[in-house]
Amino acid sequence: MKTTAVIMAGGKGERFWPKSRTSRPKQFLSLTSDGETMIQKTVKRLLPVVDMEDIFIVTNSSYTALVREQLPEIPTENILAEPCARNTAPCIAFAAAVINRKYDDAVMLVLPSDHLISNEILYADTLKKAVSVAEKDKNLVTIGITPNYPETGYGYINFGIEKDGAYSVERFVEKPDLPTAEKYLESGRYLWNSGMFIWKLSSIMNNIHRFMPDIYDGAMKIGESFGTGNFNEVLEREFTSFRSESIDFGIMEKADNIYTIPGNFGWDDVGSWLAVERINDTDDDSNYIDGNVIAEDTRHVTICGGKRLIAAVGIEDIIIVDTEDAVLVCSKNSTQDVKKIIARLKEQGRNDLI
Amino acid sequence: MKTTAVIMAGGKGERFWPKSRTSRPKQFLSLTSDGETMIQKTVKRLLPVVDMEDIFIVTNSSYTALVREQLPEIPTENILAEPCARNTAPCIAFAAAVINRKYDDAVMLVLPSDHLISNEILYADTLKKAVSVAEKDKNLVTIGITPNYPETGYGYINFGIEKDGAYSVERFVEKPDLPTAEKYLESGRYLWNSGMFIWKLSSIMNNIHRFMPDIYDGAMKIGESFGTGNFNEVLEREFTSFRSESIDFGIMEKADNIYTIPGNFGWDDVGSWLAVERINDTDDDSNYIDGNVIAEDTRHVTICGGKRLIAAVGIEDIIIVDTEDAVLVCSKNSTQDVKKIIARLKEQGRNDLI
Repeated sequence: MKTTAVIMAGGKGERFWPKSRTSRPKQFLSLTSDGETMIQKTVKRLLPVVDMEDIFIVTNSSYTALVREQLPEIPTENILAEPCARNTAPCIAFAAAVINRKYDDAVMLVLPSDHLISNEILYADTLKKAVSVAEKDKNLVTIGITPNYPETGYGYINFGIEKDGAYSVERFVEKPDLPTAEKYLESGRYLWNSGMFIWKLSSIMNNIHRFMPDIYDGAMKIGESFGTGNFNEVLEREFTSFRSESIDFGIMEKADNIYTIPGNFGWDDVGSWLAVERINDTDDDSNYIDGNVIAEDTRHVTICGGKRLIAAVGIEDIIIVDTEDAVLVCSKNSTQDVKKIIARLKEQGRNDLI
Repeated sequence: MKTTAVIMAGGKGERFWPKSRTSRPKQFLSLTSDGETMIQKTVKRLLPVVDMEDIFIVTNSSYTALVREQLPEIPTENILAEPCARNTAPCIAFAAAVINRKYDDAVMLVLPSDHLISNEILYADTLKKAVSVAEKDKNLVTIGITPNYPETGYGYINFGIEKDGAYSVERFVEKPDLPTAEKYLESGRYLWNSGMFIWKLSSIMNNIHRFMPDIYDGAMKIGESFGTGNFNEVLEREFTSFRSESIDFGIMEKADNIYTIPGNFGWDDVGSWLAVERINDTDDDSNYIDGNVIAEDTRHVTICGGKRLIAAVGIEDIIIVDTEDAVLVCSKNSTQDVKKIIARLKEQGRNDLI
């Protein structure tokens, strides 16, 4: 059976402001020293598993030009433009319906566009294993990440018995509080939910039909119009009328036949500026420093410099990010609050800075 | 007797980088919200004591245009341009010799150009008192500042008995270590050396002749050529041949008839970026924030913004100063180390940033 991939690239990446902007969010940025953007890396590491012409990118219509620019090898018709943001369930239904026009049935990998993987060999092998599990019956497969600390920012997967390297999923749980996360870690029965899914088109369409019949109907209409002159009109009408829904809540928490495969390929969701020091090399003072910077007596800092000189003196545990029109100076304990700056800018109507 | 003033404005103000640059050091900057520069304030608060035409500015030759621009009321011939920096003793000898061509004898106030005074009425009264003491005999008068904490960054004046509101000076002492500074504070017998001096031209020339005869000879030659076509040539030759010497070490630590008058007019030497929060109003979170800034969950910060947005998130006790081509992010404990950035820039030959 053919293997296809859908890369979800509609995120806003607000936690990476000021580098990430509405006009160029995180997935289109390079946060590593090799200069490759997150989405370029995502496609590249997929190629041992999926042919280029079977990789689809679902993104907001305002980013299709960026996708074409950064991924010229992807066929233009594989770039699927959402007219608005409706979370992952409508996104996946839309992509499944379109791919279903090309292939009667096929395996479909659904992957985020803005994560990092350190071992691409183990990653490809894990995906291949997942494909083989997904090909059987109506299995829905998700990649779980083995937790090494009690993270409270991720959802967890509680797994049961093993069969051929995949584990049955008992339940999905939302982001836990710290004591609960600690219990999960101790139990050895929980994995992080990475947001990577593998299933046949027929399996996921069947479940969408069962659990979200409204979205199923709309997606089918979009799929039927694909390749015709009506496509944009139908897409606009049907997609904007979808409710916002996550695939986790809409399907995964309710469906049967769910399996998880533990991934141990060095996964990082690059969730905030804190990630930059994890995914890059640091110096002897535990600093990650890039660009036009002079640092004097500084430790544990992350500095992403731009054209202008950044002079850091006597500071610790601080993140500094410089751009043409804005500079962020943020405590490492407050990286989640970068979003608050965007909220303030919105209040002030300063859209040029968002 | 005529009262004249010499404002010493040759400093480099390196601790105020990146706002202070070689081309526009601290005395030519405004560090308060009223927009007046330090040297403009210095002249303005002197006017109850000295006529404008009797105020002289000694500065480096590269700053004479800045002085004319910021102080157009000062007669051009009162701007005395040093061809190079030789510390305070040659500066004062040069000014005294030139003023001596205008007035046979006169009282001469010698004042820094980059300090702040919060009560200008008490300041003027203190200077007037000092003038009356300086007019008697060959008295050398210095203004001492009553210490309110054991500062280790200033020299101290040990005073003896009082006579007509002035105290005899027992000795000048260099910057002490902390235990010594604490002893000074406790004794009640020490004042901070503010670098403000008051004396007659005849008194100081007499002492220069006695303790620095080489500088006396050169200064006399410069004075004699003042107003002639030879002036620039003589100044260049004699001044560059002076050794570097402070008036404190060269005269004050050795001379007789030294008196000090305690000044209680709210003095701040504005010695580093730490001063900015002292000399300006702060908000409810103890922040001093100026310019294009959004601060979220920040306390005890000083932010001098420029054109670009500075977004501060979750930080404390940090100083941020933005300029067109450089931004400083500095711990409040490290403001003295700003000079190290300039040293690094010199090493790297990046003179455009100094």
